[in-house]
Amino acid sequence: MKTIYTNIIGAFVFEDSNLVDERLFSKEEVRENYGNLGKGETKQEKELLKKHPDAKAIEATQQTLEFFSDNRYLEKLREANIIITRKKVSLSVMPDHLIVQSINSMDEMDKIANTMAKRLREWYELYNPEFSHNIEDHEKFVKLVLTKTKSELLKEVNVKEEETMGAEVDDRDLKAMREFASELDALYAARKKQADYITESMKKHYPNITAICGAMIAAKLLSIAGSLQKMAMMPASTIQLLGAEKALF
Amino acid sequence: MKTIYTNIIGAFVFEDSNLVDERLFSKEEVRENYGNLGKGETKQEKELLKKHPDAKAIEATQQTLEFFSDNRYLEKLREANIIITRKKVSLSVMPDHLIVQSINSMDEMDKIANTMAKRLREWYELYNPEFSHNIEDHEKFVKLVLTKTKSELLKEVNVKEEETMGAEVDDRDLKAMREFASELDALYAARKKQADYITESMKKHYPNITAICGAMIAAKLLSIAGSLQKMAMMPASTIQLLGAEKALF
Repeated sequence: MKTIYTNIIGAFVFEDSNLVDERLFSKEEVRENYGNLGKGETKQEKELLKKHPDAKAIEATQQTLEFFSDNRYLEKLREANIIITRKKVSLSVMPDHLIVQSINSMDEMDKIANTMAKRLREWYELYNPEFSHNIEDHEKFVKLVLTKTKSELLKEVNVKEEETMGAEVDDRDLKAMREFASELDALYAARKKQADYITESMKKHYPNITAICGAMIAAKLLSIAGSLQKMAMMPASTIQLLGAEKALF
Repeated sequence: MKTIYTNIIGAFVFEDSNLVDERLFSKEEVRENYGNLGKGETKQEKELLKKHPDAKAIEATQQTLEFFSDNRYLEKLREANIIITRKKVSLSVMPDHLIVQSINSMDEMDKIANTMAKRLREWYELYNPEFSHNIEDHEKFVKLVLTKTKSELLKEVNVKEEETMGAEVDDRDLKAMREFASELDALYAARKKQADYITESMKKHYPNITAICGAMIAAKLLSIAGSLQKMAMMPASTIQLLGAEKALF
């Protein structure tokens, strides 16, 4: 009786325990076939079934497994396994992984922007302390520093130019401050773009949680849970506590 | 006998203990005069000396001080003191204060760049892990990510395109990564500009310490010491230990 057996390295026809025909897969074919083995659906299986119409497709048996423990096949099996693993790893990346990275990067950008804003203020206050003390919002502060002169800014906070406690500095010194400020300004812009991307991605891939709690909160929940899969398997009470992490301890 | 006495609010002519003439300063004059009082050099003193050629300029005595404890003058004295303090604060900013801020901002930029580079790699490795593992230098990594396509990068590290473990991602996802990368790239550029500014400033204002230990090290020493003045008053052995701070404990 002829049997046909397929594994990741190829399709094989046995008569009793002897190999009578085989089609070994190329690397390319390994990648293509690994999901459809033994269902008679690959090109190579079809060819062999045509050539041996009396053969019957079988699952792995003790006999076939022993046959492939032969040294000849070990290297090929190893290679094919590596190829398949690579492929599977590459397919395992889900949209939530990208979103988690993006929301984490946004969190970092927030921290960075705060550090930079504090530094900029400390620095800029040598030059124009009154203005800095009067504008609380960092982002507005940066925008104004970049677009207006000292006397315009002083006018804005109702301080006479001759009364300021700020020092006069060289143009070069001022330029260094401004460059730092414009770096911070670019960071605010980049942060906004990230937020847009996250919102768009969340709406597209996870419309349900996005509809319930908004794109940003939903993305943060995903990030704390680790992935959508993990979150999907959590009991509701755990999800309820995800957002309360800091409040808990 | 006539005496002429000047303080921050004006010049006064006394005859015995009675005020016979005075020139009160305007706010503007307070700012101009406060460094030259009692030397007969201010315009107001000169006028009064002309008018009372027999008057003799005196320092503060018990008598004059008691005269100005009169309520009439308190408000004027307070105002003048505030004006002078403002002026002095504004003059107290030294080039080293600006340099200390700048070198501290550079330190922060370094930390920030590292955080962002780590995040970018973690994110980008979902898409192209082999490349990221093969390029150690963060800055080079960022530049290449921004300028080349995935297949070019894989070729660079000798990985065949079909063998990569990286996932295919949407253009939108890739764009979000690239935006983060270009933000990081801008940060590297800004850091370089800061370094140039510090080098220039150090050479101009502190050529001696700069000649001895280089602009960056000199600026860091200033930053650890707090200011040039503090550093100038430190014994050599303390300065020797400034740079060893971390190694000490």
